[in-house]
Amino acid sequence: MKQWIAAQPGARHLTLQTMPVPTPGEHEVLVRVDAVSLNYRDIGVIEGTELSADMPFPLTPGSDLAGRVVSAGARVTRFREADAVLGTFWAGWIDGDCPQHARVLGGSLPGVLAQYVVLHEDWLVHAPRTLDAVRASTLPCAGLTAWFALVENTGLRAGQTVLVQGTGGVALFGLQLARAHGANVIVTSGSGEKRRRALELGASHVIDRTSGLPWEVQAREYTGGRGVDHIFELVGGENLAASLRAVRQGGRISLIGVLGEHAMTFPSVPAFLTRSVIQGIGVGHRRALEELVRAVDTVALQPVVDACYRFDQLPEAFEHLKRGAFGKIVVDVGSAAA
Amino acid sequence: MKQWIAAQPGARHLTLQTMPVPTPGEHEVLVRVDAVSLNYRDIGVIEGTELSADMPFPLTPGSDLAGRVVSAGARVTRFREADAVLGTFWAGWIDGDCPQHARVLGGSLPGVLAQYVVLHEDWLVHAPRTLDAVRASTLPCAGLTAWFALVENTGLRAGQTVLVQGTGGVALFGLQLARAHGANVIVTSGSGEKRRRALELGASHVIDRTSGLPWEVQAREYTGGRGVDHIFELVGGENLAASLRAVRQGGRISLIGVLGEHAMTFPSVPAFLTRSVIQGIGVGHRRALEELVRAVDTVALQPVVDACYRFDQLPEAFEHLKRGAFGKIVVDVGSAAA
Amino acid sequence: MKQWIAAQPGARHLTLQTMPVPTPGEHEVLVRVDAVSLNYRDIGVIEGTELSADMPFPLTPGSDLAGRVVSAGARVTRFREADAVLGTFWAGWIDGDCPQHARVLGGSLPGVLAQYVVLHEDWLVHAPRTLDAVRASTLPCAGLTAWFALVENTGLRAGQTVLVQGTGGVALFGLQLARAHGANVIVTSGSGEKRRRALELGASHVIDRTSGLPWEVQAREYTGGRGVDHIFELVGGENLAASLRAVRQGGRISLIGVLGEHAMTFPSVPAFLTRSVIQGIGVGHRRALEELVRAVDTVALQPVVDACYRFDQLPEAFEHLKRGAFGKIVVDVGSAAA
Amino acid sequence: MKQWIAAQPGARHLTLQTMPVPTPGEHEVLVRVDAVSLNYRDIGVIEGTELSADMPFPLTPGSDLAGRVVSAGARVTRFREADAVLGTFWAGWIDGDCPQHARVLGGSLPGVLAQYVVLHEDWLVHAPRTLDAVRASTLPCAGLTAWFALVENTGLRAGQTVLVQGTGGVALFGLQLARAHGANVIVTSGSGEKRRRALELGASHVIDRTSGLPWEVQAREYTGGRGVDHIFELVGGENLAASLRAVRQGGRISLIGVLGEHAMTFPSVPAFLTRSVIQGIGVGHRRALEELVRAVDTVALQPVVDACYRFDQLPEAFEHLKRGAFGKIVVDVGSAAA
Repeated sequence: MKQWIAAQPGARHLTLQTMPVPTPGEHEVLVRVDAVSLNYRDIGVIEGTELSADMPFPLTPGSDLAGRVVSAGARVTRFREADAVLGTFWAGWIDGDCPQHARVLGGSLPGVLAQYVVLHEDWLVHAPRTLDAVRASTLPCAGLTAWFALVENTGLRAGQTVLVQGTGGVALFGLQLARAHGANVIVTSGSGEKRRRALELGASHVIDRTSGLPWEVQAREYTGGRGVDHIFELVGGENLAASLRAVRQGGRISLIGVLGEHAMTFPSVPAFLTRSVIQGIGVGHRRALEELVRAVDTVALQPVVDACYRFDQLPEAFEHLKRGAFGKIVVDVGSAAA
Repeated sequence: MKQWIAAQPGARHLTLQTMPVPTPGEHEVLVRVDAVSLNYRDIGVIEGTELSADMPFPLTPGSDLAGRVVSAGARVTRFREADAVLGTFWAGWIDGDCPQHARVLGGSLPGVLAQYVVLHEDWLVHAPRTLDAVRASTLPCAGLTAWFALVENTGLRAGQTVLVQGTGGVALFGLQLARAHGANVIVTSGSGEKRRRALELGASHVIDRTSGLPWEVQAREYTGGRGVDHIFELVGGENLAASLRAVRQGGRISLIGVLGEHAMTFPSVPAFLTRSVIQGIGVGHRRALEELVRAVDTVALQPVVDACYRFDQLPEAFEHLKRGAFGKIVVDVGSAAA
Repeated sequence: MKQWIAAQPGARHLTLQTMPVPTPGEHEVLVRVDAVSLNYRDIGVIEGTELSADMPFPLTPGSDLAGRVVSAGARVTRFREADAVLGTFWAGWIDGDCPQHARVLGGSLPGVLAQYVVLHEDWLVHAPRTLDAVRASTLPCAGLTAWFALVENTGLRAGQTVLVQGTGGVALFGLQLARAHGANVIVTSGSGEKRRRALELGASHVIDRTSGLPWEVQAREYTGGRGVDHIFELVGGENLAASLRAVRQGGRISLIGVLGEHAMTFPSVPAFLTRSVIQGIGVGHRRALEELVRAVDTVALQPVVDACYRFDQLPEAFEHLKRGAFGKIVVDVGSAAA
Repeated sequence: MKQWIAAQPGARHLTLQTMPVPTPGEHEVLVRVDAVSLNYRDIGVIEGTELSADMPFPLTPGSDLAGRVVSAGARVTRFREADAVLGTFWAGWIDGDCPQHARVLGGSLPGVLAQYVVLHEDWLVHAPRTLDAVRASTLPCAGLTAWFALVENTGLRAGQTVLVQGTGGVALFGLQLARAHGANVIVTSGSGEKRRRALELGASHVIDRTSGLPWEVQAREYTGGRGVDHIFELVGGENLAASLRAVRQGGRISLIGVLGEHAMTFPSVPAFLTRSVIQGIGVGHRRALEELVRAVDTVALQPVVDACYRFDQLPEAFEHLKRGAFGKIVVDVGSAAA
């Protein structure tokens, strides 16, 4: 089988190598990988700049897979041959609190950019019935991050207003999931084309970040002065202070994404006045991913895939991701078999 | 102006009388009543069998109004002339816990089946922009009861399964609100015609209660064995035991409606095994009604009105209610002006 | 080593047999059992009347152990040799929702009334530093049940009032844990001697169930008319209706214990009027047990052990349990070594 | 009667003037003020630098009173003559969400540093039975802030670890309330004397902020590496980043106090890694104050009053407050009568 391996830090060191198909242990399953969705953190992993884990080279990147079970170890009970599955971003975070030493696929654990992988049965869930593998592969990180922020942490209600900053993968899942719960959604973007596409996807309102009027003033006005119920803070730095001016009394700001370089800053007075909650989101647990899968099937949600690359085009896929995408970039691993 | 008054217990003692238009005090508003939605408890009030309050005759029944502000007292701040408004079922329950001595319109407080009423400004909310008065009048009791059970108490999520028993007012609001949050909804009914209409309204699945197979077995099967996330218990008695067999681990059963005559009974073992919550619902507070109004406007929810009667047809309206309705029965008070 | 085994249903078939010390697998540990606390359900297990699980004879009863790790399998990471440990009642319920096919020690899994047992490392927690093995063995079922009802499900607050019915193991843990959180505690009991001991343990108030005045009237009076915040329903049947008369608006009734033979009954009107939650408690998960251990160490809680029997006195211990105990009955397994 | 009035901004413009005793309206009560507890924000109010409200001079400062009802308006139902009462900091925030235009005593509403005040009956609660007026006056702002952070927002549990920064009024209430719920409490302070007094009050552990080892490292070590469950952030600025390093996975940081001048800053990575909640605390609502009063009576909590000044010594009291206090500074208004 083929597998992407980086011998040392740097995207140019990624090569597609031939490896033996691994064999599952008692509690493990062998999965044929059909699609892998990329995340910004994958770039940090191959560049060696991702700070949250200790990853020895050579390594294989990639955390989010959709695939099929090929065979299962003798004591596996959760899956059978031919089951369509998704990986969980966190290996071993099942429900409730995150275990202190939990690990991430394509982080402190080997990644999934390979034609076959062996995973513990606890690190998989059944895939949605209504999605192909390319779209389904976007759920484990981007989809679950948006779901955890909106639903698991919060209790989103119809009639509330959610604001997402930009049109990346988590932002568009936020848009679609909030609409699926009957909420209003505001999207901020500096691109007229992306604002147009956001409206097509169901956004209730779009704000041009580059117009003269501060986005937070426009957002508050849209809510009739009440303020926004929930904001996805995806910009960071001093933008957090603007989010605090836009959020309602007792509202919520979820910190999401690659905000690591800028220190977040905000004055304390608006934090008191709004009594809002600021919370970092670190993806989520398996039980919530299972709920997201049910929700996707129930409301027929179609994740937004900006572009899908062949398995041998991984470097081009990463280039696209660095330029910025409208939704997700996916690698069609199944294409390698053709 | 005209007002319905019962001199003594019994529907046959209801007469339409001419009364002076009342004058609002400092914190009160005069409201022109456009529509009043009826509830089963109104029948108990005029029959003198409603147990939860002490109501002296002569009295005017009716708790749920939609109307317009005609004039406002000097210190009123929440409303202006010509504002479209809804009454709150509970007078003075604003948010959080219900005050111990809270009172009900058309209960221990005078009812609203009149062309004009004077109410404290705290007992009103702004009406939805997207509904006419007839439909809007169904929100304060039936709509809010369903909202409080599903949203305020629970945190309904897309992909969950809700089951409502029958097709009365609260059941159909439960159906519509759960669908608006992306949930699956099962409706049980003994009438093929009502099951057909429930499917038209968006029910995911209907169950014939009169078929040989117990409804709870069919419901559990529909959920793939997991059990139902939330059940509206609207039948009572031994049906509660069936609901406990249908509900999932950690699920919820909301007790709603006129269940007073039958003692609820259930064996304790299923209650332990499911760890489910059983909770009586007593309508809800003003803040939740304001949220429901926003939700109705956002998702364009159209409440189901089975029949609308002229103001002078109140006795016919009550007869219809006693026979059973598909959704709500409303009295078009505005018709009296024509 | 010695192990209690029942060849067929019936306590008289329990015999103490000599068995080989078992060997742990990769993820398992060998535990020297020091003490086992008994529960009413153990009686049902050996009589063959416990309904919630399928248990083939011959079997060993017992679910709640305190002991020491003797040796650990090669891949065990959570424990080391000589660690003091407690078993978890539910095997594999770690956090969040209970897995659908979770099993119980001394239920669908072998019991722990033996000098040595082998358990998966996931089914153990570290024992409290401040308790001996006899007292520590009472935490996994009775202690955790009270903790789950009061703390995990509810959010107990200082100044609230908790009422427990009787003076069994869960009731007395409820008393001690509620006091440790600054709550008032009412204990109902028909025995003057037990009421006296409850006051010594810190009860704020005791009620004689056999006095003429209904207990629920006395309880409500004690709260100045507000009603009790949280009631441990340990009697069942029609007593649940009395609990609904005693509980406050929005309060909570936890259904606990061996209530299986009597159907629970209550009229619906008080359930609406109080909007209280009724919830069955089925012990709890490992994360909560770890929290309970920390709490016990922090507040120096000493569980109440009514009597401690030698390992060879198991039949006498069960006889005592059937007669009724003030707190817990424990078998000192370590005594067998002497 | 006597009343403190500042004709223009600046503490030196405060003068004690003679004014007529006011008369209560229909829904109001006349209260004889016995004690007023001071807060840092009172200094901002008289200096004209408090930013959160628009306050016209001349004004009377002071928000937190304990007193007695002298007389009540005709329609008052909640209080009777001679009732001991406390004011609520927020006028009209009863329960649930804070009304958008809520006002503060001694802020946008007149303050209470007078021998008599007239207040709406909704802005008062019954005082605790177990405290004198001087100590009781500390509950409405400092006490309720700590309670809201620990109990209303969070669900504090026995065995958790709470860390408070410094030994001001809110910090010491945090210490006492957390201990009353069975939690461990860490106090950080640069003063050996204050650390000693904190230990006397029941602190589980104290940390010298001026020692070489960063306080957050010491705090994490104390928790065995888990991290602190709840931190009262009372310093602000870059200290928030240290708090994020000290808090546990899914823990909580409450922003409290006069942090207005320093922008809060923190790097985003620890916020993701800990998934902790950061929340500004703005005192709390009346229902929570009523619960705090019950808790104080139940656990016999004695608030810490560093010094009590005579009514005519208000300037000295403010000087003490500016220097920093161990707990609260109170003005004994009743002394004026003597």
